[in-house]
Amino acid sequence: MLTIDGVTLSSPLLLGTGKFASSEQLMAAVQASGTELVTLAMKRLDFAGPTDDILTPLQQLGVRLLPNTSGAKTAREAIFAAELAREALGTHWLKLEIHPDPRYLLPDPIETLSAAAELVKLGFVVLPYCPADPVLCKRLEDVGCAAVMPLGAPIGSNQGLQTLPMLEIIIEQAGVPVIIDAGLGAPSHACQALELGASAVLVNTAIASASEPVAMASAFRLACQAGMAARQGGLAGPSIEANASSPLTAFLETL
Amino acid sequence: MLTIDGVTLSSPLLLGTGKFASSEQLMAAVQASGTELVTLAMKRLDFAGPTDDILTPLQQLGVRLLPNTSGAKTAREAIFAAELAREALGTHWLKLEIHPDPRYLLPDPIETLSAAAELVKLGFVVLPYCPADPVLCKRLEDVGCAAVMPLGAPIGSNQGLQTLPMLEIIIEQAGVPVIIDAGLGAPSHACQALELGASAVLVNTAIASASEPVAMASAFRLACQAGMAARQGGLAGPSIEANASSPLTAFLETL
Amino acid sequence: MLTIDGVTLSSPLLLGTGKFASSEQLMAAVQASGTELVTLAMKRLDFAGPTDDILTPLQQLGVRLLPNTSGAKTAREAIFAAELAREALGTHWLKLEIHPDPRYLLPDPIETLSAAAELVKLGFVVLPYCPADPVLCKRLEDVGCAAVMPLGAPIGSNQGLQTLPMLEIIIEQAGVPVIIDAGLGAPSHACQALELGASAVLVNTAIASASEPVAMASAFRLACQAGMAARQGGLAGPSIEANASSPLTAFLETL
Amino acid sequence: MLTIDGVTLSSPLLLGTGKFASSEQLMAAVQASGTELVTLAMKRLDFAGPTDDILTPLQQLGVRLLPNTSGAKTAREAIFAAELAREALGTHWLKLEIHPDPRYLLPDPIETLSAAAELVKLGFVVLPYCPADPVLCKRLEDVGCAAVMPLGAPIGSNQGLQTLPMLEIIIEQAGVPVIIDAGLGAPSHACQALELGASAVLVNTAIASASEPVAMASAFRLACQAGMAARQGGLAGPSIEANASSPLTAFLETL
Repeated sequence: MLTIDGVTLSSPLLLGTGKFASSEQLMAAVQASGTELVTLAMKRLDFAGPTDDILTPLQQLGVRLLPNTSGAKTAREAIFAAELAREALGTHWLKLEIHPDPRYLLPDPIETLSAAAELVKLGFVVLPYCPADPVLCKRLEDVGCAAVMPLGAPIGSNQGLQTLPMLEIIIEQAGVPVIIDAGLGAPSHACQALELGASAVLVNTAIASASEPVAMASAFRLACQAGMAARQGGLAGPSIEANASSPLTAFLETL
Repeated sequence: MLTIDGVTLSSPLLLGTGKFASSEQLMAAVQASGTELVTLAMKRLDFAGPTDDILTPLQQLGVRLLPNTSGAKTAREAIFAAELAREALGTHWLKLEIHPDPRYLLPDPIETLSAAAELVKLGFVVLPYCPADPVLCKRLEDVGCAAVMPLGAPIGSNQGLQTLPMLEIIIEQAGVPVIIDAGLGAPSHACQALELGASAVLVNTAIASASEPVAMASAFRLACQAGMAARQGGLAGPSIEANASSPLTAFLETL
Repeated sequence: MLTIDGVTLSSPLLLGTGKFASSEQLMAAVQASGTELVTLAMKRLDFAGPTDDILTPLQQLGVRLLPNTSGAKTAREAIFAAELAREALGTHWLKLEIHPDPRYLLPDPIETLSAAAELVKLGFVVLPYCPADPVLCKRLEDVGCAAVMPLGAPIGSNQGLQTLPMLEIIIEQAGVPVIIDAGLGAPSHACQALELGASAVLVNTAIASASEPVAMASAFRLACQAGMAARQGGLAGPSIEANASSPLTAFLETL
Repeated sequence: MLTIDGVTLSSPLLLGTGKFASSEQLMAAVQASGTELVTLAMKRLDFAGPTDDILTPLQQLGVRLLPNTSGAKTAREAIFAAELAREALGTHWLKLEIHPDPRYLLPDPIETLSAAAELVKLGFVVLPYCPADPVLCKRLEDVGCAAVMPLGAPIGSNQGLQTLPMLEIIIEQAGVPVIIDAGLGAPSHACQALELGASAVLVNTAIASASEPVAMASAFRLACQAGMAARQGGLAGPSIEANASSPLTAFLETL
């Protein structure tokens, strides 16, 4: 179970709200996914009028909002965006994203740690998007982050858990929830992340860019349930040699 | 949807019946898995008395039986076991397994093709366990097999889709259902197999050897549903570059 | 050291002769590669005249010829090609290739085993190109093949050791040399194959299609030497935990 | 060619000096490896007497010394160790290592960047060991590091290029040499790193822990030469479909 800031979420699936064809499609995907927490960039908010208004329907669906600072290139920009988001949305939860690099959108470890420490002091519940770097993740935890969000692969790449060996160490060492973010391109990737011991996953592109986003949202919901059930079931782990499940048929031995 | 011999099964999960701690545990796992088709070795059948009787309860659950020839080392032994199974169980469906090698239990391509051709002539509906060999799979299809069951990894190894590149070619070329058998060690592996386009998966060790087999059976059921839903949703596939799902926050650009 | 038919070759690199831009380029690549055994398809032989004559210069370089039956779709075709090759080239060494599939050029296990048994009886030294199927490889050995040549990945795909788990079993079980054939796309792939315990590798596309084939031939020669030296050195194998090579600096402990 | 601080090294192999059984073995491995640059922790230096003196023989071999700050847990400790090393060894080249974590010895991105900036100002030529984090690598370059040394896998793990997708981005973006450090467990790993475009590799455990360290040093030398030759040769890259190197034998088409 994923617990953040004392709030327990029954779904381990966080959904990003970018790239959907319409508000209607987004809302249908939110419902099909079973998510209880959605991220949204400030740009998605229509402060001026009714065009592309996703805020009201999201709130009507009862999901929590996790504003993100996507587009921020420095700690200063991220803190500014965070303050705006808190004021506009009435939540102090924040997904911290700082990526100076326009091509791969990879997170900046230095600015992210600096901004996280400052935002925690400012009263935010901070969930930082970060490299799959075990030492950095511990430091983010030490400055008071409510969770860490290491990347599986570059955003939107759909490549899955390309940083697997580092994710395993991060999960082993973490004292806060580990939410695998970015790069999850198929339900099997989300399932694998939860099997490994991640507390949650964040998905956006793989659902929004699917030919049928609502069906794909449902697929991710099921895959997350599978991953959580697998942890309850206790995976046996790989072995080197074959291991017959159908033992040698006795009567054949007498042939 | 998996269709064999004109029968459509709504669950893509086939369950092996070996290694369970008790009949009760097996039956609970069968129900939790949602399977409609279970394999069993002839040795599992208690012809003499009530000890370890799994046949009656399985039949009461309404699942179809798929006897296998596990333990057969030659085509002759497999055909003999098949005839016995048909008589004992009243079904002409057969999972053909011929593995001369006692260590890795890998299937013999030559004996398997030979036995398959003969068994088809004898009226069996043949589902052969086979190497992940695209040419052999086409030949098994050509002699009339109702499906092909290429291995993902050595039986009981829990290693997942170690033969992935060959499985992709097999699925692309197949005119009959492809059922990935052996080596699937986690729900994410089953999900991945169905995402790739396999028609079904067969699981035994990963469920029976889990610390909580019933919970694990449920996890595999959900993972299979996820994999099927993912196909309906249309996976977008991996890409090389990052692809922002949260576009550049407009107001930040003016900072 | 690779020993075939009582002949010991000091180079573990076999070179295919297709796809080179010219005879001159091929000869330069042969020399740079250090190979002592080259394969060639019958079509490469110019029985009629001087055009594209590679036979004479290859013989002048002192390398052994290994004619192959590429293009054969059945055992019958392969045996016919083998007889022609023996007569034309004066060698009873033969690389047996039977691939009915025009797209992936994957070997046919049934026809290959059948042809191999027949060719051995006809006095050929048979090196069969085959699937990475451990049971088939043992059967090919049992009918008298002088080596087995399991594929690493589809011919010309440059994907490397995609069939790794099966190759490891084949090498562990083999009583004859294992020569990894097809799909080796980089010198590191050849090096890895030899580190694993393969006796040799066969490369063609990766060298012939390189922008500088002669430099690439030299790279493969070095990589093969590296792989052989690594076996002499005794690889330590992977471990789970980190293991400091530079122990804790003593004076820092007193800071 | 690897150029650092205006000095061009013809060997792309850096060798660590820990874990060798004796000074004699180390010296023989240095020679067999062809390295021109060796790292050593301060603890390896015997300031007091002749026991375990590796400094004099290394200097006699003519290799450059690259002292490292292994054991430092903070920037302060690393800078202190660097000053000591410069004074003791008479070189301002420095491998910066800061790893607070005693289990996996993973580098600390924050302290490493901070120390690197300070050390550059102090006149050192800084080669920082760092996470495979593309943004951090650019920042290390921006503060004046002479190279970056991202890890392939945890130190001593012999697991190879586990951080491959991030290494590819680092290499693509780097304006200074990229030296892959840590985790290279086999010559094929070193070859692969150079094929990818790394400027050099650092190896210690895989050589020092081999059953025959001198033979293994030679294997790595050859593998590095192979990797460099492969870059000159121009790798063709993988493709999806098979691609016959032996075209269809003409006479078979008429059968």
